[in-house]
Amino acid sequence: MRACVRGRTRNRFILEPQRIVEAAPAGDWVQRYTKVRTNSLALVEGLSDADATAQSMDDASPAKWHLAHTTWFFEEFVVAPRMGESERYHSSFSFLFNSYYNSVGDRHARPSRGLLTRPSLDEVKAYRAHVDANMAKILSTGDAALRPLLDLGLAHEEQHQELLLTDILHLFAQNPLRPEFRPPEPIAVGNATESPVVWHEYEGGKVSIGASGEGFIFDCEGPRHDALLLPYSLAGRAVTNREWLEFMREGGYSDPLLWLSDGFATVIAEGWQAPLYWTERDGYWFAMTLRGERVVDLDAPVTHVSHYEADAFARWAGARLPTEIELESAVAGLPIEGNFAASGAFAPRLQTGELSGAPSGLYGDVWEWTSSPYVAYPRYAPAGGAIGEYNGKFMSGQMVLRGGSCATANGHMRATYRNFFHPDKRWQFSGLRLARDL
Amino acid sequence: MRACVRGRTRNRFILEPQRIVEAAPAGDWVQRYTKVRTNSLALVEGLSDADATAQSMDDASPAKWHLAHTTWFFEEFVVAPRMGESERYHSSFSFLFNSYYNSVGDRHARPSRGLLTRPSLDEVKAYRAHVDANMAKILSTGDAALRPLLDLGLAHEEQHQELLLTDILHLFAQNPLRPEFRPPEPIAVGNATESPVVWHEYEGGKVSIGASGEGFIFDCEGPRHDALLLPYSLAGRAVTNREWLEFMREGGYSDPLLWLSDGFATVIAEGWQAPLYWTERDGYWFAMTLRGERVVDLDAPVTHVSHYEADAFARWAGARLPTEIELESAVAGLPIEGNFAASGAFAPRLQTGELSGAPSGLYGDVWEWTSSPYVAYPRYAPAGGAIGEYNGKFMSGQMVLRGGSCATANGHMRATYRNFFHPDKRWQFSGLRLARDL
Amino acid sequence: MRACVRGRTRNRFILEPQRIVEAAPAGDWVQRYTKVRTNSLALVEGLSDADATAQSMDDASPAKWHLAHTTWFFEEFVVAPRMGESERYHSSFSFLFNSYYNSVGDRHARPSRGLLTRPSLDEVKAYRAHVDANMAKILSTGDAALRPLLDLGLAHEEQHQELLLTDILHLFAQNPLRPEFRPPEPIAVGNATESPVVWHEYEGGKVSIGASGEGFIFDCEGPRHDALLLPYSLAGRAVTNREWLEFMREGGYSDPLLWLSDGFATVIAEGWQAPLYWTERDGYWFAMTLRGERVVDLDAPVTHVSHYEADAFARWAGARLPTEIELESAVAGLPIEGNFAASGAFAPRLQTGELSGAPSGLYGDVWEWTSSPYVAYPRYAPAGGAIGEYNGKFMSGQMVLRGGSCATANGHMRATYRNFFHPDKRWQFSGLRLARDL
Amino acid sequence: MRACVRGRTRNRFILEPQRIVEAAPAGDWVQRYTKVRTNSLALVEGLSDADATAQSMDDASPAKWHLAHTTWFFEEFVVAPRMGESERYHSSFSFLFNSYYNSVGDRHARPSRGLLTRPSLDEVKAYRAHVDANMAKILSTGDAALRPLLDLGLAHEEQHQELLLTDILHLFAQNPLRPEFRPPEPIAVGNATESPVVWHEYEGGKVSIGASGEGFIFDCEGPRHDALLLPYSLAGRAVTNREWLEFMREGGYSDPLLWLSDGFATVIAEGWQAPLYWTERDGYWFAMTLRGERVVDLDAPVTHVSHYEADAFARWAGARLPTEIELESAVAGLPIEGNFAASGAFAPRLQTGELSGAPSGLYGDVWEWTSSPYVAYPRYAPAGGAIGEYNGKFMSGQMVLRGGSCATANGHMRATYRNFFHPDKRWQFSGLRLARDL
Repeated sequence: MRACVRGRTRNRFILEPQRIVEAAPAGDWVQRYTKVRTNSLALVEGLSDADATAQSMDDASPAKWHLAHTTWFFEEFVVAPRMGESERYHSSFSFLFNSYYNSVGDRHARPSRGLLTRPSLDEVKAYRAHVDANMAKILSTGDAALRPLLDLGLAHEEQHQELLLTDILHLFAQNPLRPEFRPPEPIAVGNATESPVVWHEYEGGKVSIGASGEGFIFDCEGPRHDALLLPYSLAGRAVTNREWLEFMREGGYSDPLLWLSDGFATVIAEGWQAPLYWTERDGYWFAMTLRGERVVDLDAPVTHVSHYEADAFARWAGARLPTEIELESAVAGLPIEGNFAASGAFAPRLQTGELSGAPSGLYGDVWEWTSSPYVAYPRYAPAGGAIGEYNGKFMSGQMVLRGGSCATANGHMRATYRNFFHPDKRWQFSGLRLARDL
Repeated sequence: MRACVRGRTRNRFILEPQRIVEAAPAGDWVQRYTKVRTNSLALVEGLSDADATAQSMDDASPAKWHLAHTTWFFEEFVVAPRMGESERYHSSFSFLFNSYYNSVGDRHARPSRGLLTRPSLDEVKAYRAHVDANMAKILSTGDAALRPLLDLGLAHEEQHQELLLTDILHLFAQNPLRPEFRPPEPIAVGNATESPVVWHEYEGGKVSIGASGEGFIFDCEGPRHDALLLPYSLAGRAVTNREWLEFMREGGYSDPLLWLSDGFATVIAEGWQAPLYWTERDGYWFAMTLRGERVVDLDAPVTHVSHYEADAFARWAGARLPTEIELESAVAGLPIEGNFAASGAFAPRLQTGELSGAPSGLYGDVWEWTSSPYVAYPRYAPAGGAIGEYNGKFMSGQMVLRGGSCATANGHMRATYRNFFHPDKRWQFSGLRLARDL
Repeated sequence: MRACVRGRTRNRFILEPQRIVEAAPAGDWVQRYTKVRTNSLALVEGLSDADATAQSMDDASPAKWHLAHTTWFFEEFVVAPRMGESERYHSSFSFLFNSYYNSVGDRHARPSRGLLTRPSLDEVKAYRAHVDANMAKILSTGDAALRPLLDLGLAHEEQHQELLLTDILHLFAQNPLRPEFRPPEPIAVGNATESPVVWHEYEGGKVSIGASGEGFIFDCEGPRHDALLLPYSLAGRAVTNREWLEFMREGGYSDPLLWLSDGFATVIAEGWQAPLYWTERDGYWFAMTLRGERVVDLDAPVTHVSHYEADAFARWAGARLPTEIELESAVAGLPIEGNFAASGAFAPRLQTGELSGAPSGLYGDVWEWTSSPYVAYPRYAPAGGAIGEYNGKFMSGQMVLRGGSCATANGHMRATYRNFFHPDKRWQFSGLRLARDL
Repeated sequence: MRACVRGRTRNRFILEPQRIVEAAPAGDWVQRYTKVRTNSLALVEGLSDADATAQSMDDASPAKWHLAHTTWFFEEFVVAPRMGESERYHSSFSFLFNSYYNSVGDRHARPSRGLLTRPSLDEVKAYRAHVDANMAKILSTGDAALRPLLDLGLAHEEQHQELLLTDILHLFAQNPLRPEFRPPEPIAVGNATESPVVWHEYEGGKVSIGASGEGFIFDCEGPRHDALLLPYSLAGRAVTNREWLEFMREGGYSDPLLWLSDGFATVIAEGWQAPLYWTERDGYWFAMTLRGERVVDLDAPVTHVSHYEADAFARWAGARLPTEIELESAVAGLPIEGNFAASGAFAPRLQTGELSGAPSGLYGDVWEWTSSPYVAYPRYAPAGGAIGEYNGKFMSGQMVLRGGSCATANGHMRATYRNFFHPDKRWQFSGLRLARDL
């Protein structure tokens, strides 16, 4: 089974049931389902009904909507087909919480999600409990045919967990009271001087890229295929806030020669002068975070920058963004460890740059923008069926990001994972790592 | 003391302290203050934190914001000046809940009010209690100088009570679940046939118009002055939904010859086919109301129509809209009775048309659009001072409505009262009454 | 016969044939027709085909379009009905050059008029000659029934002569080469110091306003009716550029307290800092005029200001704008003399302020903004018929201007003449005169 | 010397002077220069001053502007540096006719080009003559250092020749009179039944792609590098109008499952139902062409479709768009022959599909959309210098087209040539050819 995720309008999947070869013990499935579902609820602890209802921009969705939509997924594709329509919790919820599956029916206008003050957060939780109870019954059958939908539904929910975090941050950043999603934690004392960049060299040549099809993947991660790489080097760590400030001080945001044409037009139109959420006060730069507003941590990776900004920074630095093939090739075989959501930091952390071994931060902290447009791999073929109706439809005008972030669910990441957003988007935990030709 | 009300951005006032001539017993003041303030809280009973937070369009404000802004008024103009800045409940609330008083400082962007999930509704109630306690202390002094601000603050709050109702209706109308602000009540059985329109004739001549200055008024209601009227007649009741349906059936919304040029452009741009909140299903017209969605009551006055629509209807009917002078002249001396908010109906009701005596419904039910642009009366002069900084600034591009509505606080209305909105606005309880030349 | 003119989309009329009482000698008619038609052609002397084709904004029309549309009027309403459809010059011209008469058929989209590079200016002239020849034949019959259409068509053409001038100025003002419509002429040496304002006092009382119906008028000028005026005074001359500069220097454009709410929003949105066409260079203010760019003439009336600006200036000056009734009352009985288009100046000129007698400049130089919204006079009733289909439809959201300008055809003006534009428009020769209460 | 071409804002180049190795005989240079320059003038024969001035959309430029801008290029980069600033024809022309070279100075706002009624077409021709005379003097020196600028300037001018044609077509298509750029020619009698598609198979494997650097290229065509291809097949001819009509009849424009997400959003927003310039009348489809409006030629390649439409068609047809590498690999070694501008057809022509040999129409007729985003080849490095200031800045959000069109100058095309436009653009002669995996 494969599926592929997110875009301007979120989350589309495709099932390839023939990929499913083995059933797991039913008990494991219930446990795994419960864990992911519980994680979602844990995220909204401390959020009020109002917090969970508001929508701060068209790209974002209310927390309540994330909770309900991921539940609707299981109701629509698992519970209703197996237990009957009468088991639906509410006749209108399919209309309200469908995201974009045309074949499943009409749906509520995306930009109006924030006006759905009803159902309340409590009722959405009741909806979740209702569907979870039915899912427990179904999963306990251990039917192997359930596996693709379970894998997909849970991967889907994990993606929405990340979006829930980035959307709440965006909402709270609009509030002059600067609400804290989680209590502040002490900022690690960084080294006073800039951590030097160590460059890691790669030979290139013919490399194999993409997922081979073992285990769950989203379909855009395959097919696995060969590609050619010229020798290149990667920075040992992501670009830091300290470096970004130097870019700003040297007029990075005002020199059109550094920018893609569409990028500089966006700088002018949006008045960009710094990463999203940054504010200057009394000579200091502050950033709004999930732990409230705080002084920018100079040695942490820069985040909330667009592809346009990342590309301009790289040009200013005399380097370039890596391709997604270069990053995937570099990360192949490394353990999938890093600062993911389970760390509880909810912010990127200081990186070392690794004098020996692999570069640091290839996983977690910030999604790293690449220079690769999000397009199909050779022989990529969307599958049919209801869930997969829109597969591939976002392969236009978006750029690939790699590696996951501090808001990504642990266990969600893979070496072949392709995230993608339009080049002007900044509200994800997106940063960059420099690359060079050798 | 005078003040003047509402526009696209809401509510501005002007004080003329010299008008205040007498003090009332302090106890009466506390009682009056408490009554109005309590009425506001009664309106939000049954609203959730989320209901009270959402903002469904730029013209509307969240219920929570209405509660806080009216409280801020007393804090800013009465409590802080008399008890000191330290008595302010929260240092940021002036920024958040100031509406448009530039001289008082910066303020939160109006279209982003719906993103203020904090403070919560409960905290806003606590804010109200804090200010009310201080106000009780201040009012108990019986200081005559308090009178203008008390009158003004309470009139201000009553205006926001009406807006709170129309804004909640607009919000709930966006929700496919069609929430009910108040439980449905049985619809009165109307007469099966159309209630005939009785025409009441007026001689005109030289008439005195505007407020003479006794008692509280908004400043735009004066100065009192003479005006000339030619003989005219007024319909004995407002235009009904039954009549509006006939206008629709005869193609009223598609014949440009019936419309003002700007009006028809709006019809096309907005796709208007019926009053706001009307939906056709299975051959029946339904309207969203504060008591949920229900079949359109054919014999009730039409409401939620714009000035453009009212003007086109009058042309179609071979009549015209009355001027505000004609309406004020007709209403002079009549008791101020009608279907106001205290009736609890929260919807316009069947009218009789009054075969003898005065026309029915001149007060209450629906605001009646006039053909009069909202401009200054002769010798109108805005006063100075902080509260009055913007007096008169809305006298451009708006049309006068008269008589109050089913959402207007009882006791708030006057014969000289001038309400005003841009001619394309429909979310108030706005209808019309026909007039003719004699 | 009456007709009424102009708005955002231009020029609508209404015929009342019963008003026509006498025929004139046919020869006079031909002569009068020829004179007005020739004047139109004289205006485009020196314009290239391209000059006559371009459209610099939606509010403006190409010179070629003005020439063709005014011709179409005679073809549509006189020639075709009397000589048959076969006499039409070109089958598509009715579609191309109809302005907004829905009953006459579809029409070319207004904002695309500048894309009609064909027909050429020469072909439009041939079109004019063709229609003129037919008109000469028809007018030579001396048929009294022709009179209303002749009067209306020529008044219509005179209005377009003024628009042609203001539209060409707007076009040339967009060109960095600053083309001259007419060669520059020496600027009169003004008095070095400010010409003092003399105030002329008026008693007011009951006055008769509007046209009595003798001679040609546009229908909005009547019916004649009584109105009440309180005592007032008018400035002896229009506001000058010198005074406007003082307003600018004292921060007039940045103080919201001086402005109507919609006005200040426009100032911000449009970045207004000075009248339209003004540019500051090396410490001097220059204005683009029909004679090229030249230093602002300090003692000439300010022009190309909107109603919003005029209103703010008056407030800043401690005065107010006059009502249209005050101006009409003041001008009644005065000779209709002033700086109109035939002077060839094509710019407002120095005024004296008239120590004795009437104020200067009440006619010509600049249209004077009033505080009066453009609404119907009492008992105003639009007539029926094709030409009058849209009568009155522009009576919403616009403000009355009085007196004519340096671009108005001589003979076109009347004491009762009501011009009107939306309050944000600036490309007409619009200025102001101050008024005060007594 | 290399240079790179066109985007939303047009035409940027980069010089690499070190590439220039040999001088040509001066006489040949003058002849070549004269030929290209003369071709430009030949294109505007029959255009009026107004035709050459109007700008029908932001993406397009006036014909006059194309003539002047290409001339400014030689004045700015050749004449002025060699003969001095005093040789400039007019001091303002650099401001008016610079396209986007920031380092060269400010420039006139692109969307306002259509308002430049002055200078006239005749004066622009005089400007050309002035610069041409100076260029003749300079070129006659035979200085080898001139070669890169000559190559670049002429390639630049050829690109603008194509744009001039597509921009005039767009302008004339807005005119209800449907002007003909060139007189109509008889339409070839096509075969009554659909020409079958022959599929040509390619082995793929490792291929060399990009320009090796001999002869003039735009810099984005290199560096030459290896790439991997899986086996694929290409249709023997471009998709025809007959096939496109079938796509339309089968609901291609209304089925979201066929479209990229951004593509279908554009279909809805723009109301697309057919290729640009198509109109249905009385059951027939007509298309506006450079020879006026005519019945759609069923057997000619479809043109004026966007990338979105081409992609949807391919999906509907069970095929896909080729990559640019596949097309370049297939075309390598073929003679550069086809229906280019010199044919005088100014429209794509019937193709055969070639049962043997190479596919037909790989060059000329219509630009063929590929599935390749326009990005840098590996090791692509923009050069420095004034002309090259913006190199690569358009490598974002655009798609590659290959092969040239019926509006491309003969001699302009190369196997490695990369044209590019945003995926929603339709006013170029853009079509498609299907590809399949083997």
